[in-house]
Amino acid sequence: MAGTEAELASCKVILAGTIAKSLLSEVSSGLSKLQQPPHLVGFLANTDPAARNGCQFSLRELDREELESAILAANADDAVDGIIVYYPIFNNRQDQYLQQITDIRKDVEGLSHRYIFNLFQNIRFLDGERGLQKSILPCTPLAVIKILEYLRVYNTILPYGNRLFGHSITVVNRSEVVGRPLAALLANDGACVYSVDVTGVQQFTRGEGIKERRHRVVEKEGWGLKDCVPLSDVVITGVPGESFKFPTELLREGAICINFSTEKNFGPEVKEKASIYVPAIGKVTIVILLRNLVRLVQNRKGTLDPPDHASDFGNS
Amino acid sequence: MAGTEAELASCKVILAGTIAKSLLSEVSSGLSKLQQPPHLVGFLANTDPAARNGCQFSLRELDREELESAILAANADDAVDGIIVYYPIFNNRQDQYLQQITDIRKDVEGLSHRYIFNLFQNIRFLDGERGLQKSILPCTPLAVIKILEYLRVYNTILPYGNRLFGHSITVVNRSEVVGRPLAALLANDGACVYSVDVTGVQQFTRGEGIKERRHRVVEKEGWGLKDCVPLSDVVITGVPGESFKFPTELLREGAICINFSTEKNFGPEVKEKASIYVPAIGKVTIVILLRNLVRLVQNRKGTLDPPDHASDFGNS
Repeated sequence: MAGTEAELASCKVILAGTIAKSLLSEVSSGLSKLQQPPHLVGFLANTDPAARNGCQFSLRELDREELESAILAANADDAVDGIIVYYPIFNNRQDQYLQQITDIRKDVEGLSHRYIFNLFQNIRFLDGERGLQKSILPCTPLAVIKILEYLRVYNTILPYGNRLFGHSITVVNRSEVVGRPLAALLANDGACVYSVDVTGVQQFTRGEGIKERRHRVVEKEGWGLKDCVPLSDVVITGVPGESFKFPTELLREGAICINFSTEKNFGPEVKEKASIYVPAIGKVTIVILLRNLVRLVQNRKGTLDPPDHASDFGNS
Repeated sequence: MAGTEAELASCKVILAGTIAKSLLSEVSSGLSKLQQPPHLVGFLANTDPAARNGCQFSLRELDREELESAILAANADDAVDGIIVYYPIFNNRQDQYLQQITDIRKDVEGLSHRYIFNLFQNIRFLDGERGLQKSILPCTPLAVIKILEYLRVYNTILPYGNRLFGHSITVVNRSEVVGRPLAALLANDGACVYSVDVTGVQQFTRGEGIKERRHRVVEKEGWGLKDCVPLSDVVITGVPGESFKFPTELLREGAICINFSTEKNFGPEVKEKASIYVPAIGKVTIVILLRNLVRLVQNRKGTLDPPDHASDFGNS
């Protein structure tokens, strides 16, 4: 049933590098307005060499027992603009404790409780109505949002905050780090989201006519991929491990498919069904890290442009 | 069940005048490149005063028996760039004969058989590969296409000609003048179209993976609005007569609704379900008439810019 190259031509494959390049030009313009280049510090306190990949920032390698005081010192150091810590470190609840140590004004990964709270509560600014300090969003979920903006799934004709209204999106992964915050962000922007993991399907929406201010979650008893994927015009996967292969036969004709797992969750046959396929997102995530760093500096200096809810500036 | 004004705020109503204004600026730029203002002649040979509304062009009123020779004279007159005839005239097959009298180089309404043939066959140029002479599309179907472009339903990330891939669109009206050519245009651009009239539902698509060059039509035995509307992210109505009211309860949450009938096919409750509602299209149709006139002059002079299939210039 596999088609030839010519037959598959109706699916457009968009590489993360292309999207990253477009975002980078936006970030560069923010960078150019800063008085000096922002300084990002990365702490590497584990021995996982994979964590070092894909990051161009200088690293401080140290023993994990030194990490807490090193973060506190970086918090107090005016020469440091952003802090990134490569997790896991202790691989237990101590890691969650360490995540809350980083000063939120330097938390480039958006892992501080206040940022996560704002994300789930659909609160977009730290300074309320003034709107000069944007709440920071975690890099991988925000990378997916930015990809959906690039793919024109966000409809800029609709008001800011409602631009996914009318879209149904399946997210296969409900981790606290990516899948659940991503489902919440998409639903807060107006989508009907089906969040899928091994335990089942949850629906995230802002209710009928997206009249509610933030998303709510409904358990879809007995549902599986076979129930939600045929309803979805966008499917986002992030399942770790080689064993999972997305059941392409469930896809709607012309669905948009995005994979954020380092594994290939979609087989090559996805191109026979999808209109757009984004096979990986890593390069976008790296630009988002830089973007968040610029945001942190803007937030501290209060140099963010006033919010323009009619603009297509989008999320975060 | 009707909501208050605030509760309905999630539906964006977009008036034809807004879209017309945006299109007009594009047409004006084409106009400004012509050596002299194009000359459009309108023939009014019926006594329906409604036909005179909404048109700013000068008219030649005449007896219907004089019409045939008047069109032939206008065909031969180098000072005439476009011809428009207000139908119905005889209200029988003689009207179809008269439609084929107008020189296709002056047929601003796109009613000539060659244009209609090209529309259904998905042939976009008169001069084939050279691509310097665009085939003219009839004004009302093209107005709907231009509205869908304005609403970002056409995804400019996808290649020209495939930009509706992934969309399911219900069109309620299958007249030869608007509904059937519109369904064909939408399907030729990659959509899955459900064309509905009193006799039933037909599906227009370019097949699995939109691999075919032009649309094909499949009769959906036993289907009605209740079967196709819940599948559709866009619903377009054009039912004449006051008695028809679209069953809003069938709409998907966040559907995009467009009405091209002079009657209000959607009740006010559409705003509780739709993400975008376009209540009428007349003002856009008038700009399209002007746009077609500019195209005719460009086609004659061969001054059309070479085709750029990567641009978002869109249909026609």
